[in-house]
Amino acid sequence: MPAEFDLIRSYFTHAAPRTVLGVGDDAALIDAGKGRLLAVAADMLVAGRHFFRDADPESLGHKALAVNLSDMAAMAATPRWATMGIAMPRADARWVAGFSRGFMALARKHGVDLIGGDTTRGPLNICVQIIGEVPARQALRRDGAKAGDDIWVSGTLGDAALAVAARTKRIRLKPAELKQAQQRLDRPQPRIALGLALRGVARSAIDVSDGLLADLGHICERSKVAAVVALERLPLSPLLRRYRSVPAAQAALLGGGDDYELCFTAAPVKRAAVEHAAAKARTRVTRIGRVIRAPAGVCSVVVVDGDGLPLAPVRRGFDHFG
Amino acid sequence: MPAEFDLIRSYFTHAAPRTVLGVGDDAALIDAGKGRLLAVAADMLVAGRHFFRDADPESLGHKALAVNLSDMAAMAATPRWATMGIAMPRADARWVAGFSRGFMALARKHGVDLIGGDTTRGPLNICVQIIGEVPARQALRRDGAKAGDDIWVSGTLGDAALAVAARTKRIRLKPAELKQAQQRLDRPQPRIALGLALRGVARSAIDVSDGLLADLGHICERSKVAAVVALERLPLSPLLRRYRSVPAAQAALLGGGDDYELCFTAAPVKRAAVEHAAAKARTRVTRIGRVIRAPAGVCSVVVVDGDGLPLAPVRRGFDHFG
Repeated sequence: MPAEFDLIRSYFTHAAPRTVLGVGDDAALIDAGKGRLLAVAADMLVAGRHFFRDADPESLGHKALAVNLSDMAAMAATPRWATMGIAMPRADARWVAGFSRGFMALARKHGVDLIGGDTTRGPLNICVQIIGEVPARQALRRDGAKAGDDIWVSGTLGDAALAVAARTKRIRLKPAELKQAQQRLDRPQPRIALGLALRGVARSAIDVSDGLLADLGHICERSKVAAVVALERLPLSPLLRRYRSVPAAQAALLGGGDDYELCFTAAPVKRAAVEHAAAKARTRVTRIGRVIRAPAGVCSVVVVDGDGLPLAPVRRGFDHFG
Repeated sequence: MPAEFDLIRSYFTHAAPRTVLGVGDDAALIDAGKGRLLAVAADMLVAGRHFFRDADPESLGHKALAVNLSDMAAMAATPRWATMGIAMPRADARWVAGFSRGFMALARKHGVDLIGGDTTRGPLNICVQIIGEVPARQALRRDGAKAGDDIWVSGTLGDAALAVAARTKRIRLKPAELKQAQQRLDRPQPRIALGLALRGVARSAIDVSDGLLADLGHICERSKVAAVVALERLPLSPLLRRYRSVPAAQAALLGGGDDYELCFTAAPVKRAAVEHAAAKARTRVTRIGRVIRAPAGVCSVVVVDGDGLPLAPVRRGFDHFG
């Protein structure tokens, strides 16, 4: 398990007696009374680590909010309010104007109020906190998966990581291809509508921010189950399909982050309901595997090829301290 | 007005239709139903700007939460939940252990649950968001001051800034004196109990984080009033009193930040009630001046000396982009 999570868990996980669900899911849940929960999440984006230093400010504004909205989608929460802390090397009004334009356009689209925050000088760092609402018992958590559940994923996987691979010279893309992949990296579309439509349908959910294997792995660990995923069933964009034999593209597909799709599980009896929810949300979903009992208590994710044989282990997710 | 606030206001202040009180106070207020409001605030601390790079991690953990608790105190809110984003250059377990110890000790003292967050690699940056509760109509805001109100401040002012002045060679303190001032800088005590006791008593409040003149100035601007403060009445620690003739100490008293005392206004008829609230909270309070109508619409803060004559303007507050 990445050292990042070790650190968080060992030092910042404490009893949270006033909290319905604390550290360890896409968002925490607190009781707001009247059968309503508030979902609360925070993400920090650091220049040179979560985005390229030359990132277009408008895209960055979009993304800073999008990654938090994605956490709300994974909890089936309606996003409502956001705060933001931002450190920047200098007061560059044009940069701030672009950033704000991207941030606020997405906020308005999803009915989110920016209600406060802090602006200071420092190495570029953006920390957004989001608060959403979800009826009690309808929140989707990481710990709800059961052996026998289908595993589903929205959209297509790996395109965002393909852009990172191209920018870091691990794969060569044509300019039009890079532009297309870069769009997925820069402008993730949080699956809010799908998350809401899956209330009462899915049993567990997570957003794919660290890569499919890592994030599905989080569901397995929290639910004390294991998972089998069929490589052939994974939803690929035409672009990724073109490069699927290249190792960097395979790594992007299974281990790349930044897709901000939803990975969720649901009982097989809910297949029609899942399809209906996806149609309602106008979002493609694909059934990619099955939840199984954890063999000997090991909550692993196994990927099988077209012959049903397990692949060799793939790099799992992104460890900020790796 | 500092460029920092210009930036925030122009780009990040938008209509917030789902929000009782948006950007521009110590915390935002959102409606949680049943006559209860949630107060939400976020503060970002950057190494080398808000704290010395060699700061003791345990003190830093304390301070990162304390500055947010102070925002809750200024709103008369009961702090409940916190999230934290933290970027650090490397995964230094000893540092994290110390930081976490300081943070969690203060969290437990005030009954706050740490419910989530994000840990990543990057230049040291700590962004804490806090959520508190306050009954509707009992929140203390910056915009409630009325001409004729008394102006009060808790504790003593300027000691924290005196430590900064000493560390940056603008004043010379004896080692024991520096230690004493440093304690105020490193371990601010948020005035939660006083904030709660002032519900229904005070008319407006702010915490003194940017310096008395700057922060009282915020009350004046939001309330569309002006203020007169008597220099002789300002509460000084014995340490600050010893150095009060030194310009750096005077600047610390009026313009230095990091005191995290409460500055509040109340009708003169409430004097006994204020004293009673202070006694209940075991916190010293001092009446330092009076709110007046804004002369010609200018919401200024004037400091008068022992002869009742206005002082020359003093540097007002800390501008992170100055």
